[in-house]
Amino acid sequence: MDRKIRTVLTVRLFTDEKCFGPGVATLLHKVRELHSLRAAAMDMSMAYSKAWTIVKNAERQMGFPLLLSTTGGRHGGGAVLTEEGQALLDAYDGYCAELRETADRLYDKYFAKFQ
Amino acid sequence: MDRKIRTVLTVRLFTDEKCFGPGVATLLHKVRELHSLRAAAMDMSMAYSKAWTIVKNAERQMGFPLLLSTTGGRHGGGAVLTEEGQALLDAYDGYCAELRETADRLYDKYFAKFQ
Repeated sequence: MDRKIRTVLTVRLFTDEKCFGPGVATLLHKVRELHSLRAAAMDMSMAYSKAWTIVKNAERQMGFPLLLSTTGGRHGGGAVLTEEGQALLDAYDGYCAELRETADRLYDKYFAKFQ
Repeated sequence: MDRKIRTVLTVRLFTDEKCFGPGVATLLHKVRELHSLRAAAMDMSMAYSKAWTIVKNAERQMGFPLLLSTTGGRHGGGAVLTEEGQALLDAYDGYCAELRETADRLYDKYFAKFQ
């Protein structure tokens, strides 16, 4: 019993079906950084068509748009997060962060004995 | 914004690599109930060879046996959880349950606004 155990939490949001999880959260972070869904997908080594499907599915399930297409200007053909998309991403990140704190606090109680 | 969102948590344990999660936890619960890894795998519609590999990988990563083969007697050819396997399953279940409580408590803070 000398192995260091670490715990990994994955949080997924469901409505009727799965709609939001680590994949779409990472995509939205990248869109915010790169101002483009295509660039975000490329940065994650993901096909653009897959990224597009993930975002569209999340939007349909949530009932509001996450991305706003931008045309022209310095970031022509790009995308930005909608206000609701930004709020959802912040909520997801905050929720995961607070859960992670609890997970760290509970760790010793449950797993210290296996180290 | 009229969709009911629910959150699903998945907890996985890692040492060098992934070693314990919902799949092996369910297998161990079934072994405890059915006194047989083969019956447990069948009950989960999982190939016995896959169940065996999952358990062996978890044992190798954790550094202790999870199952004890039993031969003869009323449950001939079956399996039971080792003391350490039972302790790990209890720890995993307890950890997940406490995290789930926290997740439920945090839900409104983060997601009520999206209902």
